[in-house]
Order: sequence, then C-alpha cells, then structure tokens
Amino acid sequence: MSPRGAIVLIGFMGAGKTTAALQLAAERGLRAIDADQLIEARAGSPIAEIFARDGEGRFRALEEEVVCELLERSGSGDVVSLSGGAVTSERIRAALDGHVVVWLEVSPELAWRRVGGGRPLAVERGEFDARHDARLPLYGAAADAFVPASVVRSSLGRVYDAVAALRDAPRGARLLWALSASGEYPVYLGRGLLGSPVWPLDQGSRRFCVTDRNVAPLWLDAAGVFEHSIAIEPGEPSKTLTTAAEVWSGLARAGMNRGDHLVALGGGVVGDLAGFCAANYQRGVEVVQVPTTLAAQVDSAYGGKTGVDIPEGKNYVGSYHQPAGVIVDPATLDTLPAQEVAAGYAEVVKTALIAGGSLWERIAADHPIDDDVILDCARCKLAIVAEDERDAGRRQVLNLGHTVGHAIETVSGYRRYRHGEAVALGLLAALELSEQSELREQVATLLSRHGLPRRAEGVDRAAVAQATLRDKKRVGDSVPFVLVDAPGAVRHGAAVSGAQLDAALEALCG
Amino acid sequence: MSPRGAIVLIGFMGAGKTTAALQLAAERGLRAIDADQLIEARAGSPIAEIFARDGEGRFRALEEEVVCELLERSGSGDVVSLSGGAVTSERIRAALDGHVVVWLEVSPELAWRRVGGGRPLAVERGEFDARHDARLPLYGAAADAFVPASVVRSSLGRVYDAVAALRDAPRGARLLWALSASGEYPVYLGRGLLGSPVWPLDQGSRRFCVTDRNVAPLWLDAAGVFEHSIAIEPGEPSKTLTTAAEVWSGLARAGMNRGDHLVALGGGVVGDLAGFCAANYQRGVEVVQVPTTLAAQVDSAYGGKTGVDIPEGKNYVGSYHQPAGVIVDPATLDTLPAQEVAAGYAEVVKTALIAGGSLWERIAADHPIDDDVILDCARCKLAIVAEDERDAGRRQVLNLGHTVGHAIETVSGYRRYRHGEAVALGLLAALELSEQSELREQVATLLSRHGLPRRAEGVDRAAVAQATLRDKKRVGDSVPFVLVDAPGAVRHGAAVSGAQLDAALEALCG
Repeated sequence: MSPRGAIVLIGFMGAGKTTAALQLAAERGLRAIDADQLIEARAGSPIAEIFARDGEGRFRALEEEVVCELLERSGSGDVVSLSGGAVTSERIRAALDGHVVVWLEVSPELAWRRVGGGRPLAVERGEFDARHDARLPLYGAAADAFVPASVVRSSLGRVYDAVAALRDAPRGARLLWALSASGEYPVYLGRGLLGSPVWPLDQGSRRFCVTDRNVAPLWLDAAGVFEHSIAIEPGEPSKTLTTAAEVWSGLARAGMNRGDHLVALGGGVVGDLAGFCAANYQRGVEVVQVPTTLAAQVDSAYGGKTGVDIPEGKNYVGSYHQPAGVIVDPATLDTLPAQEVAAGYAEVVKTALIAGGSLWERIAADHPIDDDVILDCARCKLAIVAEDERDAGRRQVLNLGHTVGHAIETVSGYRRYRHGEAVALGLLAALELSEQSELREQVATLLSRHGLPRRAEGVDRAAVAQATLRDKKRVGDSVPFVLVDAPGAVRHGAAVSGAQLDAALEALCG
Repeated sequence: MSPRGAIVLIGFMGAGKTTAALQLAAERGLRAIDADQLIEARAGSPIAEIFARDGEGRFRALEEEVVCELLERSGSGDVVSLSGGAVTSERIRAALDGHVVVWLEVSPELAWRRVGGGRPLAVERGEFDARHDARLPLYGAAADAFVPASVVRSSLGRVYDAVAALRDAPRGARLLWALSASGEYPVYLGRGLLGSPVWPLDQGSRRFCVTDRNVAPLWLDAAGVFEHSIAIEPGEPSKTLTTAAEVWSGLARAGMNRGDHLVALGGGVVGDLAGFCAANYQRGVEVVQVPTTLAAQVDSAYGGKTGVDIPEGKNYVGSYHQPAGVIVDPATLDTLPAQEVAAGYAEVVKTALIAGGSLWERIAADHPIDDDVILDCARCKLAIVAEDERDAGRRQVLNLGHTVGHAIETVSGYRRYRHGEAVALGLLAALELSEQSELREQVATLLSRHGLPRRAEGVDRAAVAQATLRDKKRVGDSVPFVLVDAPGAVRHGAAVSGAQLDAALEALCG
C-alpha cells in the first residue's frame, strides 16, 4: 500500500462489502465506488444477465478490464468494493499493490444465509462452500487488513482509522480487527512497526510502560516515548502481587491518571502482569500490548486474559481486560534467546493442533516460524475469543496442554520450567490422554527438535496430579480436559478419571 | 404480602404495567389480569368514554369496586396490573396488603413520550407532571418492590423470581431492582433478612465469606452457612493488597472455584475489599454484598466500585464489579458502635444533599435514620449509578465531600479518621468552596450533633492540598470538584483554583 492508495474491500459474496464501503465512506466523508456497478454500466446490463448470456469467463474478462482501470485512478479519497471473484484475476491482484486491501471475512454459513439462491454463483450449497474454501488463500494473500464481517456498525469509524493507519506502517504490515464481547481493537503485525507512527490510541493519552530488564535495553527506545517506564525482573517468578504492587505505586508516583494508558512491552509475563495492573489501576486504564516473545506474539497478547500467580496456583488472581490494541513486530524475535524461541514454539504447536488445515501442515513439515505463521496463529486465537471471550465454552480449547502444564509450573514453583516448556509437557500429556500415540510421537519429535523437553525430569508425579485437580477451571469434582481427536478437531470439557490422569503422568514424569 | 398473594403492578400511566404483567406472566406461566379491562367489561364501555361521560370521580368509584373485588380473589398464580390512579383510593391501598406490590417506576419524560395526548389524564404536560409528582409518595408507601420501567426485557425472569422471593422475606422487607451498564441485580432491605431464606443466587453456588473480627461474632451465624469464612482485622488499615493476598490464598486453599460466590459481610472496608477479591479471583466470581454498617447500607454496598488503598492514594487499585445482589438488614445497625453510626451519618447527609426533596427535609429536621431513610439513600445512589456506572459524568456527584475527604484520609495514613469522619470534613470543605455559608453552618451543626468533627485537628493543610491534587479523578492539571448550589442541586466537574482550595482548607484545618 502507499499513502496515496484507496481502501479496497475484498471478500466472498455475501460479506457485505458494498454496504461496508458505503458506511466507511459515510463515516469519514469519502467516495464509495462499487466495481459491480461500473461493470454493469460498461456492459449496459445487470451482472446476472452478463453471466447468463456470456458465462463467467466473459464476465471475468470484463471485470479485469474495468477493475484495473478503476484501481489505476483510485486514491486515498476512495473506498472501493470488488466482487467476490475479483481476486481470481492475476492482473487485478497485481493492481491491488499500492492500495490498502481489506478482506471482509464472512463464514460460508452466514454468506449462504444472505445470498444463497439469489446470485449466479450461489445456486448450489456444496459448490458455494467449495468455491469459498478455494478462494480463502487468495483473499489471505492479497489482504493488508483482516476484518470480520460481524464487526459492529458502531465500530466502523475506528476500523476505518485503523485501516487507514496502515498507510503509515512499514511495507508488509498487516492489520487484524479483533472482536470480543467486551470490546474490539486493532492488532498490527509487521517488521518495523516499533518505531513507526502506527499506534492504536491517539496522542491525547499519555503512555506509561511496563517492561522487563531484558527487553528494556533492546526495545524500549524503539517502542516510543513514555512518561515513565518500569522494568521488572524477567521471568515467571515476577508475575506476583508483590511486583504488581510495585508497578501500581510506581505509576501513582509518576502521576498516571485515568486518561493515560499503559504499554506492556515484553513477553507473556509482562503482558499478563501489565494487563492486570491496567485493569485495576484507578479502576481501569487502557493497555496496549506490545509482545516481544514468540509465545506472546502467537498467543498470550490476544484475548484480554490478565493475571498474576499466587503460591496456590497459576493465574489465580486476574481479570479479563481487552487491550486497546496490539502491536506485533517480529523483528523483536531476532534478539530472543534460543530458549525463549523454543518456549514459544510450544504455543505454536498447540495453536496448529487446534487450527488444523494449512497451519498444521506447515508446522508438521517443520516450516520456519515466519510472519505468516505468527499471523495465522493470531487469527486462530482471535477467532476463538470472538466466539467466547470468557471461557464459557469454545475458548477452553485454548487450554490444550495447559491443564497439566500449569500444574507442572505450580509444583516446581514457577522456576524449573518456562511456561512454554511446561506447555510442551502438557501437550504430550493431553495427547496421551487423547490416546493419539502416533500424533503424540510426531509432536514429541517436533518439540525435541526445537529444544523442548519430552519428559518432566525430577518433578513429583503425585504433586502434579494434586495440582491438576486444583485447576481453576475445575467445577465441582472434575477437571475438564481438552483432548485432540485429530489436528483441527479438538474438544474441551472431556471427563478424565484419576487413573487415566495417573497413567498419562507416568509416561511423562514416571 | 403473604405467600398466597398476587404480584400487583402499580405506577404512573405510561410505565408499561400492562405489558410488563403479560411478560412476567409469560416468563413463569402465570395468569395476567389487567384491571382496566375488567372495569371496561363491568361498565360496558371504554375507559376514555367513562371519563368523558361520567368524569374522574365516577370512574374512581367504579375502579375501587372492581379492583377491591379483584384483589380479594387474586392469588400467587396471578400478575395484576392496576391503573396509574388506583393507589389514590384508600380502600384499594388497604386491599393491597397481603399482595406483593411492584412499583414500575417511570420518569415523567418517558411517560409523556409514551402516552402524552392519548389518554384522559395525559392532555396537558404541566398538569401531567404535577399529577406524577403528587402520586410518588403514594406509590412509594404502597410498594414492596421498586423496579425501573427501563429494566431490560431479558432480565424479567430474574426480576420475577426476585419479587416472588419477597413472599419468603420478613414482613416489611422491600426489593430495589438495581440497573447498571454491566448488570442488574436485586437489593433486599428489611429487618430480619439475615437468617431468612432470601438470597440472590441459587443453591448450586457455594458461599464463601469475607467479614471482619468485629462483625463475625455478631452476625456470621445469622448470615448463613458458608463453606469457609475469612475474618480480617477491622478498619481502613486492612483495605490493602496484603489483606487481599491473604483472602485470595485463603479462598484458594479452601477450594473455592468459579461456580462459587463470595459474600461480603461487614462495612465499607469489607465490601470494597471482598468486592475487589471477587472481581479478580480466578478472573472473577460473583459477590453478594451484605452491608452491616450505616455507611455501607446507605452508600458503599451499591454500585460495584471495589478496591484497596495503596500508600500513594485511597482506592487507587480496584475495579468495577457489580454485586449479584445486596442484602440489607438494618437490625445489624443495632449492634453498631456510636462512632460507626456517626461515620455513616456523614454519607446520609451527603446523599440527602444530592437528592434534595423529602430526603433532605427529613435530614434537615434531624429525623431519625430509619429503614425508609436507608431505602431512600439507596434509591438515590442506584438511580445515579443506573445513569452512569463508570464515573463518566453524573456519577461524579456521589464524590461530594470525598475529594478533600480522601486526601485527609491519605495524609493521615487511614488511621486518624474513619472514612465517614473524613467525608464529614470533606462536605464542609465542599460547601465552603460552593460559597454556601448558611447551608455549611446548618450541615456543620447536624454533623456535630451526630458526633462528627467540624475541624480537621492536627492535619497538615499543605499535605491535604497536595494529596487533593493527586486525586485519581484528576484529568490533566485540574481536579474536578463537586459543588452544591442547593440541596438537590449538585454539580460535578467544577474547576477550583489552588487559592480557593487553600482558603477552604484554611477554614477546615487552618
């Protein structure tokens, strides 16, 4: 994209691109241009007639001509909506370069409810779904911004501003619009974002920073100008009420007030702790998450879970507090110690097991963890949180590997294993409980190859079992487990007996 | 009311009583009876015709006859809606005894929008408003339950259950239905509620209790059966993160989980602390507030503000967490030390200054603090929170007297003055800043008579001024004050200069 480019909406039929273009244009006083209208004007007949008379091939040729001309002359004052199939043209895809391309994502279910039976390419449901699935990679590759079609209308002004901000972002940066029951926010992902002008809150709100002593010397200057910053001791042992109390007092002494916001610059520990501090400082201030570890960039920075550990259990004290925005700069991973990369890899494997599909295929083939893998992990997590912010159901699948993982962390005093290492062990326990011995072996090999443990050495099995039964997800007498039937087919709330748990732990720490 | 009585809806025309009766009946499989329909059937003509032909007097006589017969034969399977004027009949008011009377409260603005010009008694706006105001005391005196007409429809099942629970409550108990942006809940108020079966959550959720060592020996047994209870050291110095950490660990060791709930049995300190612990225990569990001090019963138990103090400021750490319900038993005040009653009196005076009207008249006349005063204070607070849960505007008036009051508490280390005593001093400062010397003298006399200080002895004026400027309501450079133009006419966000503040503090601590 370039500062002079137009906002261009792409996506499957039924996503609501034409309406969204009109609303975005109305929000910010721009011109809305609907490509289909121009094609009809050129042809002198409605789209359905062109299809019926000339077939799809002739329509696409005409579309390519009209859309390429349109994109040639469109600029930053325009919001353009394209047909669902426009991205099948290589020429159109090339012509999108220089514009800000927004994919309005819609599920085939909703799309069919909206247009099924009423358009030339929405006649038969099976064919409709197959067409949808085939186009997903084209939309994904073309998109600069990923916006769910279910975005609430009152957010469209904010969505527009967030999308338009991509014009100031480094080349290749992308935007995910995150939904949840308690709020919507932009997630920016791209190399060089730290140091760029892209920021989810306006200049009127002063920035205060929580980071750690490893990250501060590397990234604090690049991350922006702060009224005050507090660098905690790195590592899970800092995720305590004592550290939170130091942060709150430090912010108060620095004069932070309710109109200001907090920035969490660091890994999962900083993100959880700073999020918790923001949620409770003066009854709540905004927080911007700036994850600098792989585990945080693929998982923990999204979804608003915040908290600290107490001696009785991990994350026992905390709250839900959605960020005002997330800035993900994969360049920060270049300075990450190998052990931290490995720990993050466990969350990548977890997410790939949940997502299945092309993400799992890449991970199973030991594809490098590039920006696209991070993006797809973030998209998987955000899609789940959008459905179920507060762990009432579907979100529980994200705890895959975490039930036993947390117990291992708790009994080892949060010191012996990093969170990601404990999750790696927890994943193996969950696959054991799932009776997926082949997949377990495949995952164990991947984990080993990336420097993660296959066995919990020197950890007391009985203590882990007991801590597992005190999991805060417990309701009544049973702890619900997340089990894997196959990559992409993960179910939550599975009842596991004490004997099964014991057997799974024996294979792990026996 | 009695277990056999019907639910009877009263309230001004336009409140939506007929529709609410139909919805409540549909929710719980009951019979809805509309008194106006029966009157029309008896008369053989529509209400408007009876008015036009026979006048209001004849209509009321007919209404009295029909409604008294109806109430005589209605029972627990019925939901009855009465006309707006039915309560003007003394016979009907007497006949309401034995039923559960629900006042559906509507503002005259909304009522006029709904029925203005369309009913016999809704012809002229001024006369309509005067009629509304004249009837308020009649509705208030007759009501067992006070339900805002703006209750959201999805809550009606819960409202019905809460209203019906009054059948199990001690005689004279009343229900307020509390609204806020983040949730609705029942507030029960009456002598003998502790020990009665009335409870806002069902039996499936286990109860855990936070109380203090003064309250526990007096009221813990009466308050119910708890899985576990934690008694903290009484007083504001306990409202800290250290105490919160002890509570969280205690709850975790006692096995509390997300399906359970916490009960805050005590005064403002217990309520704020337990509310904060509930908001953040395992990312949030429900809390039932059971206030046992006057300050808590008239003010702090409602509205969902929770928090603890840190050395840098009062309530600097906390969150909004609306209770699942509030149980107010004024019998607990009988065991309250005189100093605690006095401290609560400061909040009563604050509330009366905000509310004006009949509440202020009673306080100005030094009327005893009976159940009706407590009820009216609670209604005043709940009405303000319903408008503005998160202090964005109108709710700030509730900080009347608290800006300087908190500063006095902070500089004296939360030890020299109880919260209510500091508020008394803060009220005098606010009235000084409001240039209301006569009202200030009147309030000072009332406060003195109830054992509250008129002057902040031994408190450093400069330190108070400095702490005031660090108030967490501060945005940018100024601290917005709440000022009083007259009882019932209070405005927030008033800019106060350093010199004015200094002068006001001189009169207080000079």
